[in-house]
Amino acid sequence: MRYSLLAGGKRVRPILCIASCELVGGDESLAMPIACAIEMIRTASLIHDDLPCMDNDDLRRGKPTNHKVFGESTAVLAGDAFLSFAFEHIACNTNNVSPDRLVRIFAELSSAIGSTGLVAGQFVDIESEGKVVSLNELEYIHVHKTAKLLEACVVCGVIIGSGNDNDIEKVRIYARFIGLLFQVVDDILDVTKSSTELGKTAGKDLVSNKATYPKVMGIDEAKNFAYHLMNQAVQQLACFDTAKAAPLYHLAYYIANRQN
Amino acid sequence: MRYSLLAGGKRVRPILCIASCELVGGDESLAMPIACAIEMIRTASLIHDDLPCMDNDDLRRGKPTNHKVFGESTAVLAGDAFLSFAFEHIACNTNNVSPDRLVRIFAELSSAIGSTGLVAGQFVDIESEGKVVSLNELEYIHVHKTAKLLEACVVCGVIIGSGNDNDIEKVRIYARFIGLLFQVVDDILDVTKSSTELGKTAGKDLVSNKATYPKVMGIDEAKNFAYHLMNQAVQQLACFDTAKAAPLYHLAYYIANRQN
Repeated sequence: MRYSLLAGGKRVRPILCIASCELVGGDESLAMPIACAIEMIRTASLIHDDLPCMDNDDLRRGKPTNHKVFGESTAVLAGDAFLSFAFEHIACNTNNVSPDRLVRIFAELSSAIGSTGLVAGQFVDIESEGKVVSLNELEYIHVHKTAKLLEACVVCGVIIGSGNDNDIEKVRIYARFIGLLFQVVDDILDVTKSSTELGKTAGKDLVSNKATYPKVMGIDEAKNFAYHLMNQAVQQLACFDTAKAAPLYHLAYYIANRQN
Repeated sequence: MRYSLLAGGKRVRPILCIASCELVGGDESLAMPIACAIEMIRTASLIHDDLPCMDNDDLRRGKPTNHKVFGESTAVLAGDAFLSFAFEHIACNTNNVSPDRLVRIFAELSSAIGSTGLVAGQFVDIESEGKVVSLNELEYIHVHKTAKLLEACVVCGVIIGSGNDNDIEKVRIYARFIGLLFQVVDDILDVTKSSTELGKTAGKDLVSNKATYPKVMGIDEAKNFAYHLMNQAVQQLACFDTAKAAPLYHLAYYIANRQN
């Protein structure tokens, strides 16, 4: 569990969660247990997605994947343990937050993981391998595999920071655009960068016949689409205090322009 | 997910949860979402334990295991989805319960699943295959693989039924004895019954060199141990109203005397 959780990574999700808490005036410390829990959930999904029966990946964040080092059974169990430890960590370590806000956070987070979130996306992704995939199907995969958890990050951050329903709605839409943006950029990097530059196996989507944006709309149109999504995302932040919204602005630019 | 959850089974865990809620005067309806969630968690652990990289089992509750019917990737994802859906189901469907009791239930349940519960037991169980296993190691496996979730069932039932800390402590000890009892009887059945009688592959523990009570202490001593555990369990119920404690008495007898 330590091997995969502490392997680095961009930590975009926990940063999103903390930035969203601060956006509505909450202190970073309030959001920290949830930010950590979200990184655990993310790590669980990566460990399971990399398994031989799933994407069969050997490299993740520049290191051999979990099952390559510890074996398949341990990798399955490490993912399972992270899914439950995420909830345990929140329940046992969140202080100075009303329990009813915590229950809302449990509902939001858990719905982002299971058959209405990550699992649904990964399922359809695996099923679509080797098939012709429409843009609608492609978006279904990415909304569930990527955007839903990002959405949970910002929504949970705003809930824990004592934001109101209008704040939640704004960051929810921000996250949906960011989520798609994230995946479009991922797909572009897969065909334009090397394995060394990415810290994971590059060109894999092409080999595995997996649906990607560059494949469906071409590389130039995919880049235009990414630019459009970034602009739509930052527009959602207009109603917030500019200084407090700055990290979320910068995250959108960072996600659009990242090189690995 | 439906295939494995609705495949039958004894439903001992949800019954324990509901009976514990009623033990302290709570209504069945209060405990129902948690009872269902616990059955989902149990089902998730069975689906993952049966995987080829784990116990590699073909038969469960008289039917082909999940990965035999739907493939390995779907089986991994179905288990993942159940782990999160359990928490979602509790968060979204429990009514008339204070949120602080729900947060305690989340803490109790999640600690029974991960690296302090089910996962720890399964990990050591897998690691111990083909090795000589002491009685201490054997008990570690069963405490984590079986007893911890049973403990969570009764503790969550009492919490949701508005029981006090003393009630929680009594049912916690009851569950620890029941948990060991459950596993001792399971091990005895594995060597004394056929696959048809059990609805799962019999004699498997012997073939796989897995640690079991009959192997370590002999079949007669294992039966005596089971009887002793049952008596210790029911002694914990002495301080409760006899009529309300009756289901938990009967469950102890049922677990001790079950034939499959």
